Amino acid sequence: MRIVIAPDSFKESLTALEVANAIEVGLKKIWPTADYIKVPMADGGEGTVQSLVDATGGKLVQASVTAPLGNTINAPFGVFGNGKTAIIEMAAASDLHLVPFKQRNPLKTTSFGTGQLIKNALDLGVEKIILGIGGSATNDAGVGMLQALGCQFLNQNNQPIQWGGEYLKDIVHIDLSDLDPRLNHTEIEVACDVNNPLCGPKGASSIFGPQKGATPEMVTQLDKALLHFSLLVKQQHKINIRDVAGAGAAGGMGGGLLLLPNVTLRSGVDIVISAVNLVEILQDADLVITGEGRMDSQTAQGKTPIGVAKTAKLFNKPVIAIVGSLREDYEVVYQAGIDAVFPIIHQVDGLEETLKSGQKNLISTAQNVARLYQLSHNR
Amino acid sequence: MRIVIAPDSFKESLTALEVANAIEVGLKKIWPTADYIKVPMADGGEGTVQSLVDATGGKLVQASVTAPLGNTINAPFGVFGNGKTAIIEMAAASDLHLVPFKQRNPLKTTSFGTGQLIKNALDLGVEKIILGIGGSATNDAGVGMLQALGCQFLNQNNQPIQWGGEYLKDIVHIDLSDLDPRLNHTEIEVACDVNNPLCGPKGASSIFGPQKGATPEMVTQLDKALLHFSLLVKQQHKINIRDVAGAGAAGGMGGGLLLLPNVTLRSGVDIVISAVNLVEILQDADLVITGEGRMDSQTAQGKTPIGVAKTAKLFNKPVIAIVGSLREDYEVVYQAGIDAVFPIIHQVDGLEETLKSGQKNLISTAQNVARLYQLSHNR
Repeated sequence: MRIVIAPDSFKESLTALEVANAIEVGLKKIWPTADYIKVPMADGGEGTVQSLVDATGGKLVQASVTAPLGNTINAPFGVFGNGKTAIIEMAAASDLHLVPFKQRNPLKTTSFGTGQLIKNALDLGVEKIILGIGGSATNDAGVGMLQALGCQFLNQNNQPIQWGGEYLKDIVHIDLSDLDPRLNHTEIEVACDVNNPLCGPKGASSIFGPQKGATPEMVTQLDKALLHFSLLVKQQHKINIRDVAGAGAAGGMGGGLLLLPNVTLRSGVDIVISAVNLVEILQDADLVITGEGRMDSQTAQGKTPIGVAKTAKLFNKPVIAIVGSLREDYEVVYQAGIDAVFPIIHQVDGLEETLKSGQKNLISTAQNVARLYQLSHNR
Repeated sequence: MRIVIAPDSFKESLTALEVANAIEVGLKKIWPTADYIKVPMADGGEGTVQSLVDATGGKLVQASVTAPLGNTINAPFGVFGNGKTAIIEMAAASDLHLVPFKQRNPLKTTSFGTGQLIKNALDLGVEKIILGIGGSATNDAGVGMLQALGCQFLNQNNQPIQWGGEYLKDIVHIDLSDLDPRLNHTEIEVACDVNNPLCGPKGASSIFGPQKGATPEMVTQLDKALLHFSLLVKQQHKINIRDVAGAGAAGGMGGGLLLLPNVTLRSGVDIVISAVNLVEILQDADLVITGEGRMDSQTAQGKTPIGVAKTAKLFNKPVIAIVGSLREDYEVVYQAGIDAVFPIIHQVDGLEETLKSGQKNLISTAQNVARLYQLSHNR
């Protein structure tokens, strides 16, 4: 029997590899001689770097970068085992949690550090960069990121604008001539799971601004700045970034990235599925186990277990999900190809204790899943 | 497909029938046309009356009885649908929880109310009484119960002794001549799951006295009183109750009952299994689902799911347990015939909220069990 174990991480508890290892331990109690293929998965969000490093036998690299408010921090990114692909999470350099609560202000925050991570990856000679965006503290349309890669955004005095979403309004000239030339032969896949446009009521400022600290007045100010920026981009570089689905992701980072050559916005889980060769791996599976920390109706919107299940159903494989917790509205996942779901919580306890029991409960649940599957199989 | 659903109650949350109903709802989502046989189960402890009333289509009867400290209370007992068997829980009349915390004192508490319940059952003309003992506030060797049924325990002045374990020491004569004559043709099955003898370091007073409010001094006093009582019983009625396994149950109630004719001490779950004809029911089952509120290593010591599993394994039937919570040490249940176990908790929450979600989580878990069983079955 060939069993593919392809879970996401359990947030705040276990990496995807740790989840897969625990499930394997549980299944092995019943099927000691089965073939186990463990594929740490992710959906482009938190944990994607670790999962892809683990899945490809890669490594983590530390880089010194600029945090959203200008201070210097160390931030990790990943390189695949073959050395040809880098995996970067924007959150490593530009996350909201890097900004103290009281200083959260998207007028001032920059995505410069994310550009530095890309530059560090280019320095390693990779052919491809996977970039997970989201969780950012910024609303600067990725201008900071582009600055770090050589773009110049000049004001009416021909001086570089300051960092922060507020100053996009001052740009009069966008000069791409000094853009890092390595970007011309480096593919960038952007994991992007929101469809928001750059501007307007569904745009970056209106939808995501408030959670980054923007007041209603700031939202208006930021939205105007993004509009100004998009008009300049169109005028000076013939690129329409305003209406592209996903341009509003990560404070407009989805839009700003479109100024780079060879950029594709894709669903995060699809990028990961390609990166780990999941289609090939699932072809020969007899049983597929997936999972995530918390399953709910959102899971059906392109989260890891659904990506795994849909891929498995291309070959009509059985798919069982083992999850940290299960919300009332989860049943939509059945239609998406998950055959059965089992939460792992064994007893009533506080969150901290429950998270601590994660590995043990995963082993136990996996064992019982195998026992039940086996039981029926034998009849 | 014929599915037998035979769970215990989930304490503080759902009766056994409610548990069985919820499991049925979940399974029916996958197997709408299967035959479902629901058998509310119990192990002789809390919930046994309700389960057997539900299992036999019987009814609850209220009786006015004496609580452990002498006040009058209403207490329920059950009568089977056929009217021929009564089911009594000692706890209904003599439970520790009927005594305010500060007044808990086994020197003073009486089991008289339990005797009254038996008398009420006899008044209904039953042929058999099932009596669950345990959870008592008493340490009177069932003397109060025997008094209610006509036994006389006389002191040196030929007067009845007072109520309470303390006064057993005053008995000089045990007169059984006025014992309710209906007991001669009424079988009493006592559900007894402890093996403690009446006296000594493993006896009723030492082991169970402290939890009923006895200080170390009281324990010594009570143990001496029980010894005195057992010696008199042997001397005057040729019955050895001191060394019988189970005589120490429920403050010596297990011993005192042996003064009645037609009394058998049995394992609680075995009594229930006989009462609901479980052997016959399981013969034709394709799948057996059992469960209980909390499964742990104690479960293997004769609790309901093990009784069900052992009976099912007489016919090699698959047995799945669905449980409220699952403790680390539960795995011993596998050896006892449970094939797989699934806890129903879906998310981290407080005890009260978790208990409230019991029905919903049971339905969901049962559905997923059926989905997984079915999945494998179809391959």
